[in-house]
Amino acid sequence: MSLIDRINVCHRHDLSRYRPFSVASSRVGFMRADMARSLAQYPSVFRVTDQSVSVAEHLDTFDYRSAAIDSVMREMRQNGLISGWRDELFPVAETYGQPPLFDLERAAVPLFGVKAYGVHLNGYVRRDGEIWLWIGRRAASRPIEPNKFDHLVAGGLPTGMKPFDNLMKEAAEEASIPKELARRARPCGALSYRMELDGCLRDDTIFVYDLELPADFLPQNNDGEIADFRLMRLGEVERVLAETDSFKFNVGLVIVDFLIRHGYIAPDRPDYSDLALAVARKP
Amino acid sequence: MSLIDRINVCHRHDLSRYRPFSVASSRVGFMRADMARSLAQYPSVFRVTDQSVSVAEHLDTFDYRSAAIDSVMREMRQNGLISGWRDELFPVAETYGQPPLFDLERAAVPLFGVKAYGVHLNGYVRRDGEIWLWIGRRAASRPIEPNKFDHLVAGGLPTGMKPFDNLMKEAAEEASIPKELARRARPCGALSYRMELDGCLRDDTIFVYDLELPADFLPQNNDGEIADFRLMRLGEVERVLAETDSFKFNVGLVIVDFLIRHGYIAPDRPDYSDLALAVARKP
Repeated sequence: MSLIDRINVCHRHDLSRYRPFSVASSRVGFMRADMARSLAQYPSVFRVTDQSVSVAEHLDTFDYRSAAIDSVMREMRQNGLISGWRDELFPVAETYGQPPLFDLERAAVPLFGVKAYGVHLNGYVRRDGEIWLWIGRRAASRPIEPNKFDHLVAGGLPTGMKPFDNLMKEAAEEASIPKELARRARPCGALSYRMELDGCLRDDTIFVYDLELPADFLPQNNDGEIADFRLMRLGEVERVLAETDSFKFNVGLVIVDFLIRHGYIAPDRPDYSDLALAVARKP
Repeated sequence: MSLIDRINVCHRHDLSRYRPFSVASSRVGFMRADMARSLAQYPSVFRVTDQSVSVAEHLDTFDYRSAAIDSVMREMRQNGLISGWRDELFPVAETYGQPPLFDLERAAVPLFGVKAYGVHLNGYVRRDGEIWLWIGRRAASRPIEPNKFDHLVAGGLPTGMKPFDNLMKEAAEEASIPKELARRARPCGALSYRMELDGCLRDDTIFVYDLELPADFLPQNNDGEIADFRLMRLGEVERVLAETDSFKFNVGLVIVDFLIRHGYIAPDRPDYSDLALAVARKP
């Protein structure tokens, strides 16, 4: 695969396989037919047609919707229709910055195809003017992409948490980065992608942070989500990303952006313009 | 205007007002009806229909096409149909990195709506941990956007010149940046926009560079294109950009990208996701 293929993987989807899912006239997600059929069993909560799914209009507040949908989700979990329950709520809104319409159990987010947000940290060191990137390997027990290479720190953004606060929390849990060091992380942009994964639509936006670390810093995982860490030269990162499937799918997107922002990938490459424009493509 | 409006200005266009312009079956531009009618006067060079314009098939090499089209351009200039002649050639290709199909006088580029490339340099200094950006004011004599605020260094990419070499040349001409200092400029990405300006379609890609300058550096213009320079705090840059029309249209796009990449605009803003995704939107 080339780097551009690695980006395109994150944008691969066919919306015609999904029905729009709306709340209070706002389209907030995309749903498979089988999920729509499951929700049709709960007509007091969901209005399901052949073309669309929406939350019943009488559920007209955040609290009503969250409570009613949570009950349905728990019943579907009991019936084996939702796996990997996280006991973690994600806010559902039309766009970032708008008040959420309801909160949804994280494991159900891909089933509704609603927008989700996360933070990724490019943790790097400089040695003799060259940049090396800290790379984690996901634990074998992770439900998504086990054993794949990942960022030093990354995590989904739950309800009620600000991106920077989430990054601080994950930096402590995932890599034991001392707070005074983690605080120097700099926001560098947002990357968005919409892709089909395991038959669901993921509509994700990643808030990207960079953090230059001291040469002697050694990350240590605290939450069992990362099996080990290694430091890779950018040349090695690029080679592994282009030639193997070792990286988690969305980590590739964030790394290509990093390579571009830091000038490792430069306009002397004939594919520069394609790469730089593709990496931040809006869905 | 908000910052997002400033970005959207660069993407405003209605393709239905233009006819596709192709060379050897590749669509390379978009043309107004009046330009198409002018080119219809030269049937040995252009094939013009109500739906499209193309270069005559017998002109089947780069040299043939460049020479024949150049003759037409010079005649149109004589007839007052092309103003602001630059005597500078821009390469015309389907995408960046592909061999050009012909060379075209720069003043005619918007008339053909072909892709053009340029370089912009964010020249900045740090004072007490705060970033200040060097801003130039365009000379009153400039054909496009006179007197507007501009980057420290910016320029179109002519035929046969690589982006970095072009940046080095413009850095010397526009701001007298010593070569050993200019060479530290780092490529940070590409921004693309497609907008209607003066009834023509501009389909531009800007290669963005950052350069941290010493606090005592003072730019000096050598080519008469910049009237003066000033150093602005990022807060002032943002205010002037959002509240006034003082900046050249595409400079706003590059500056919002700079503010995002350097963490001045951060995810705590409710419009962060919109801004970060809009700035790098592919046309």
